[in-house]
Amino acid sequence: MKKRQIVVVGGIAAGTSAAAKAARFNPHAEVILLEQSETISYGVCEIPYLIAGEIKEEEKLVIFSPEKFSRQKGVTVKTLHKVEKIIPNKRKLVVRDLNKSEFKEFSYDKLIITTGALPKKLNIAGEDSGNVFPVRSRDNAKNILKYLQTENPKKIAIIGGGFIGIEMAEAFRKLEKEVTLIHQFSLPLEILEDETRECVLKELTANGVNFIGNVKTEAFITSKKGKVEYVITNKGTFETDLVIVAIGVDSNVALAKTAGLRLGKTGALFVNNLQRTSNDNIFAAGDCCEVKNIVNGKMSYIPLATIAARAGRVAGENAAGGNTKFDGAIYSVAVRVFNLEIARVGLSSAEASQIYKIVTETIVSDSKIPFMPGNKKITLKLIIDQISKRIIGANIYGEAGAALRANTLAIAIQNKMTINDLAHSDLIYSPPFAPLWDPILVAANQVMKKL
Amino acid sequence: MKKRQIVVVGGIAAGTSAAAKAARFNPHAEVILLEQSETISYGVCEIPYLIAGEIKEEEKLVIFSPEKFSRQKGVTVKTLHKVEKIIPNKRKLVVRDLNKSEFKEFSYDKLIITTGALPKKLNIAGEDSGNVFPVRSRDNAKNILKYLQTENPKKIAIIGGGFIGIEMAEAFRKLEKEVTLIHQFSLPLEILEDETRECVLKELTANGVNFIGNVKTEAFITSKKGKVEYVITNKGTFETDLVIVAIGVDSNVALAKTAGLRLGKTGALFVNNLQRTSNDNIFAAGDCCEVKNIVNGKMSYIPLATIAARAGRVAGENAAGGNTKFDGAIYSVAVRVFNLEIARVGLSSAEASQIYKIVTETIVSDSKIPFMPGNKKITLKLIIDQISKRIIGANIYGEAGAALRANTLAIAIQNKMTINDLAHSDLIYSPPFAPLWDPILVAANQVMKKL
Repeated sequence: MKKRQIVVVGGIAAGTSAAAKAARFNPHAEVILLEQSETISYGVCEIPYLIAGEIKEEEKLVIFSPEKFSRQKGVTVKTLHKVEKIIPNKRKLVVRDLNKSEFKEFSYDKLIITTGALPKKLNIAGEDSGNVFPVRSRDNAKNILKYLQTENPKKIAIIGGGFIGIEMAEAFRKLEKEVTLIHQFSLPLEILEDETRECVLKELTANGVNFIGNVKTEAFITSKKGKVEYVITNKGTFETDLVIVAIGVDSNVALAKTAGLRLGKTGALFVNNLQRTSNDNIFAAGDCCEVKNIVNGKMSYIPLATIAARAGRVAGENAAGGNTKFDGAIYSVAVRVFNLEIARVGLSSAEASQIYKIVTETIVSDSKIPFMPGNKKITLKLIIDQISKRIIGANIYGEAGAALRANTLAIAIQNKMTINDLAHSDLIYSPPFAPLWDPILVAANQVMKKL
Repeated sequence: MKKRQIVVVGGIAAGTSAAAKAARFNPHAEVILLEQSETISYGVCEIPYLIAGEIKEEEKLVIFSPEKFSRQKGVTVKTLHKVEKIIPNKRKLVVRDLNKSEFKEFSYDKLIITTGALPKKLNIAGEDSGNVFPVRSRDNAKNILKYLQTENPKKIAIIGGGFIGIEMAEAFRKLEKEVTLIHQFSLPLEILEDETRECVLKELTANGVNFIGNVKTEAFITSKKGKVEYVITNKGTFETDLVIVAIGVDSNVALAKTAGLRLGKTGALFVNNLQRTSNDNIFAAGDCCEVKNIVNGKMSYIPLATIAARAGRVAGENAAGGNTKFDGAIYSVAVRVFNLEIARVGLSSAEASQIYKIVTETIVSDSKIPFMPGNKKITLKLIIDQISKRIIGANIYGEAGAALRANTLAIAIQNKMTINDLAHSDLIYSPPFAPLWDPILVAANQVMKKL
């Protein structure tokens, strides 16, 4: 019997999850992973901590080398293989082998597309200068590190106040650089609640980040050596030695388009709950496709490694002959901003207001009992649907114990828990870890008074 | 109209919760709190951290003074008032005023009994010596502190390897005392899984606690000054300067018995889900009564401050004319043992095996990504019902990030979550806080392979 041939395109979070799962689920399948760069299985989210020096060696970010992945997971790995085109009716791929600059064809029974996302561009002159970097790939990381070593830049301009921009701002401040963070809105991190965003801004400012909000980046002025020297905005000109552009990502659907696959309203690849695309033989996972937000039921674009890894496993299992479902995500995300732990789970109040009549409550409470060493204040905002009394979203932040508490709220949201049930939850109490009334219980009891 | 008179007997966790809630819920009620000692609203669980010097001032453990509680909560507080007898058919209490050594009568419309628990006694000679202390009250705490200051004991014998015994062992080791921990079983902390208990024993030993297991304490030998000098056991004699007896507690139901109230099978006071006793006008909450374990549906004796505080609120509200339910508890508990965070939620495998066919899995995983500073190993044991595939219990321990993760599992257990749903949960990932696959997800995915 001919082996089922499963080809995975892309080798980061979703791709490696999919390939490993496919090979494990169906030992009789031949699983081939095609990756256009030299590296697979790379921790992109860790790049800011590498730049900051918290992670000491760049090589640590490689979880599996191609050889190790191949050996341990039973997957054929071909790096420097760029898939140019899908021919769905022949179940063939046209692939450029970048080693030899030659074209090859690969056949597949099932194809898994995990082409990820591409960093958005400003589309202004100078963007391709030697001191302008996105933060999206191993090459980006290596290039930033190299530039830091060889050129010792003093002034850093970061365009974009999303998660990556903020993490990079922190990283460069730890290296004692002068950091200007240029953002299109008045507050960073649009996906958080306004009070959370204000707190983030305060923490950035307190730690020496020069945040310039409500601003449009208009041009780069480059030197004769081809380096950007000035960032020109509608709010003034900023001198710089190194520029980070982190204004978000777009799903990378160019390859999927060659197969005529359906895109969703978000512009990312449509998939059903089996991670199957509009073509029965083609699956997809990760930042190239949409994911269902299980709180409001909407197909959404949430490019996060957690979702990519989990959806990748589902795609892998189903491509290998399984029938497992991916229910979706609730948008659980956390970030450290200097001394603050910040997390969001579930809907924002803006999203929630579109379909629910919401009630919110923000409390400030203690992470431990007040007189225990290490006690810190935690701020928690709960977002409740007034009709069903379900908890549908939360922001939580503080100096300690905020991020892991977000997971407790995540499980509550996923289980469609009412606020009454949450208020009566049996959570731990032990002076070194938590107060008698955990902030979650304090907030739940408080918001109930409004219902 | 005559005011509804609500009398609460006992002023620690359950009593203060009940009284405050009753007064808030029904501003027309007169709420009277009777407490036999001088202090209400005292943090008993914090005593070990006070002894260790982590909490600097003994007074900090008083959350509300009687005056402050009275003023802020609208409750009449009478300390040094010992209730001797309940006369249910007259709805009267016979109370001894210890200030004046005289008897008084108090009438009630609704009574709330929160008489707590009493430390178990060894019932051997010498137990009432001046250097033998239980750890159950403010007076105990003050007496231990005073003895430490005046007598500077070097050798400490702790009888009992439960939570209090272990926390006290840690406290005395931090004071650089020689600590012998004498326990009736081979491993400490019976309510935890055996592998967790072994890890606790290792941590105790590594930190210089001389743990003597499987031993019966037979006698104390006292000096002429009335101090215990030797603890005699079936495994040898131990010299000591100070003895802690922490062998558990018994529900304090002596007063309840004067009213002929029904006791449960555990020996503690029976209450229904309104916290009502077998007498319609008498409610109860806290360590004097039973609580329903909502995982196995059994009435259980779980003397924990968290349950007392929550059940106290329910008793208070219902005594004040409300109709709110207390669903019960899942037995969420956490303890620090030197560098280890340890927690249990839900059933133990021994309890679970009585009614379920269980499958368990123990994994060791990373609290963060492996190469981030501060990453520690976390051990997680999941207990699953093979039929329903629900998670019904867990032990989790490690040097960091274990205790708060227990709450995430607590919410999963309370929501009767299947292991499949838990494995697909959308938890946070951020290098400073958690790995891409949180230990909870690792364990859930691992145990699924056995189902």
